[in-house]
Amino acid sequence: MPSFQPPHVLLLGPGPSPVPQRVLEALARPTIGHLDPRFVGMMEETKSFLRDAMQTSNPMTMPISAPGSAGMEAAFVNLVEPGDKVVVCQNGVFGGRMRENVVRIGAEPIMVNDAFGTPIDLEKVEAAMKANPGVKALAFVHAETSTGVESDARSLCRLATEHGALSIVDAVTSLGGIPVLADEWGADAIYSGSQKCLSAPPGLSPMTFSDRAVETQKARKTPVQSWFLDLGLLMGYWEGSGARAYHHTAPINMLYGLHEALLMLSEEGLEAAFARHRNNHLRFKRGLESIDLSLLVAEASRLPQMNAVVVPEGVSESAVRSRLLEEFSIEIGAGLGELAGKIWRIGLMGAGSTEANVDRVLEALAICLDRKPA
Amino acid sequence: MPSFQPPHVLLLGPGPSPVPQRVLEALARPTIGHLDPRFVGMMEETKSFLRDAMQTSNPMTMPISAPGSAGMEAAFVNLVEPGDKVVVCQNGVFGGRMRENVVRIGAEPIMVNDAFGTPIDLEKVEAAMKANPGVKALAFVHAETSTGVESDARSLCRLATEHGALSIVDAVTSLGGIPVLADEWGADAIYSGSQKCLSAPPGLSPMTFSDRAVETQKARKTPVQSWFLDLGLLMGYWEGSGARAYHHTAPINMLYGLHEALLMLSEEGLEAAFARHRNNHLRFKRGLESIDLSLLVAEASRLPQMNAVVVPEGVSESAVRSRLLEEFSIEIGAGLGELAGKIWRIGLMGAGSTEANVDRVLEALAICLDRKPA
Repeated sequence: MPSFQPPHVLLLGPGPSPVPQRVLEALARPTIGHLDPRFVGMMEETKSFLRDAMQTSNPMTMPISAPGSAGMEAAFVNLVEPGDKVVVCQNGVFGGRMRENVVRIGAEPIMVNDAFGTPIDLEKVEAAMKANPGVKALAFVHAETSTGVESDARSLCRLATEHGALSIVDAVTSLGGIPVLADEWGADAIYSGSQKCLSAPPGLSPMTFSDRAVETQKARKTPVQSWFLDLGLLMGYWEGSGARAYHHTAPINMLYGLHEALLMLSEEGLEAAFARHRNNHLRFKRGLESIDLSLLVAEASRLPQMNAVVVPEGVSESAVRSRLLEEFSIEIGAGLGELAGKIWRIGLMGAGSTEANVDRVLEALAICLDRKPA
Repeated sequence: MPSFQPPHVLLLGPGPSPVPQRVLEALARPTIGHLDPRFVGMMEETKSFLRDAMQTSNPMTMPISAPGSAGMEAAFVNLVEPGDKVVVCQNGVFGGRMRENVVRIGAEPIMVNDAFGTPIDLEKVEAAMKANPGVKALAFVHAETSTGVESDARSLCRLATEHGALSIVDAVTSLGGIPVLADEWGADAIYSGSQKCLSAPPGLSPMTFSDRAVETQKARKTPVQSWFLDLGLLMGYWEGSGARAYHHTAPINMLYGLHEALLMLSEEGLEAAFARHRNNHLRFKRGLESIDLSLLVAEASRLPQMNAVVVPEGVSESAVRSRLLEEFSIEIGAGLGELAGKIWRIGLMGAGSTEANVDRVLEALAICLDRKPA
């Protein structure tokens, strides 16, 4: 059997996004020990880069050694205890996954539902918080990967604080593409993924916890149900000062990749990265209009990095996706849940957000749909 | 800030082990989508390689997308429910971690303790099984990384089956170095790690579940407390036939690395790999004797891949370790728990198990201890 030789595919789906050559090369550097002082130094730099990216001074900021789904679980199992009430906003697939997490803790989810493709309705959230005194946490998705919608994270975090609840923020698709302002928002737990706007390979989940979240975790009445995701143990492992306590073996080479990706983000600058995502989204939007295609999401809450394109009547969405992959080596995503068959998800995330990529996918779409730009 | 450039270190500690250049190069191949048909093909090959390595025909054989600690947790949270009794054998640090997992499920651990450095006593286990009818599972570590001891996995699995219990086997350090015979033993759940005798970087946990384990999981009365590690959801993601159900985003590049490492193991052949580990261990043992050093573990239960070397009286174990790292670029491990300060852990695992490495570490040790080979 030969070695696996993956093809070169332009990744314009919902993630993973294209990984720059510099990051791929970092992955291939020699493995060293996870307790080696030089590795510990790199962990410290990674934490510092993540604080910059999340715009926070939270000491407890580090990548979880597993994908974003585990980051979500880490937020819930550390901050929520059995019997707690959690207001969960659902306006896409990932809100539903949050609900699953709450249920499996033995806590009570209070759902605030909005239609897929629309942002979270603040008034409904406020009503739910008022109707349920003593809510432990308010959980929501900042950038819904399944629909391309941005919700108002600042107001949602404020609502949580006003009602004495912790805020749990899914920033998997937002981090690096649009502002994630942990401190300004007063967010208590934010988790993300390496494989979206950070352009590292999938497998790591950057997280930050506010001091209030850390205190809440320390004051738990019950043990955290997950040993692997226990914040207390993770802190002992990721703390730089003094002796690090062995917890698990960090995914060393993956962390080389994340470190390099975060270095690239800091070289570009956060504001420049946000502007690039915005400009390429606008270029893409104009191009879509010129071939008579439209976006699902209203302009005010469109994510620049994740575009939900409405599949025209009479077009087989899967046939177009397959042709894009097979003939043009471009991957785009399908709709999930109730949007299956109705949208394509076209990501312009991280290193994937370039003018050349916008033009390439537009041209390929025009050919597949037999439409000439106006 | 510059890119992180790790030094070249010869990894002869308790893991990670040296990662061959072929595996490092595989990591750096272009990232493709985790739902891409070509990626799915690679997943199928990886499952097949793992079945060969674990000598099983279990359909449910795949790597968990997180380190071995998460593999351990996956075994427990899927097979054990609150209130269940679990006999946990502890003869090293990792048995204690198993206990933690059982407690956090709300199940009852029944501990069978043996001294660190000795194998699990079968008679004590049998007595514990007899004294506690209805035990749900018997859990033990096949190859204790913290002490260098092999326990009798075949007999322990048989004891479990005879008493109507499932067997949960930690094969983190054994897989690829000594025989792991899932089917012959009748083991129900085995988890391992990528970074020991498989010589891939850390971050993945190969697992196999027997059909009986899968049936037990399906018949649970309570939901699995972890969404990320829920076997039912993982099966939907890793199943090759028909539509794969999106669960999480697989760590794509890490899986390239594991695939390549398993390909190399299959090229060498399992029996040849075992013989290489054994022969290099014997070479190392002779060399230790020639400089008047001894191994902690009795010959009958010594692991060839993990050597617990007794620190001589009056020698600072940490000073020797630091000098090996700084002056000779060789990493070895410290003792854990009650063996801290008393042993060095010298791994000859996977690609690290070569005659040249044995000679190199012996020579460096002789210099550090100022001993001339007899």
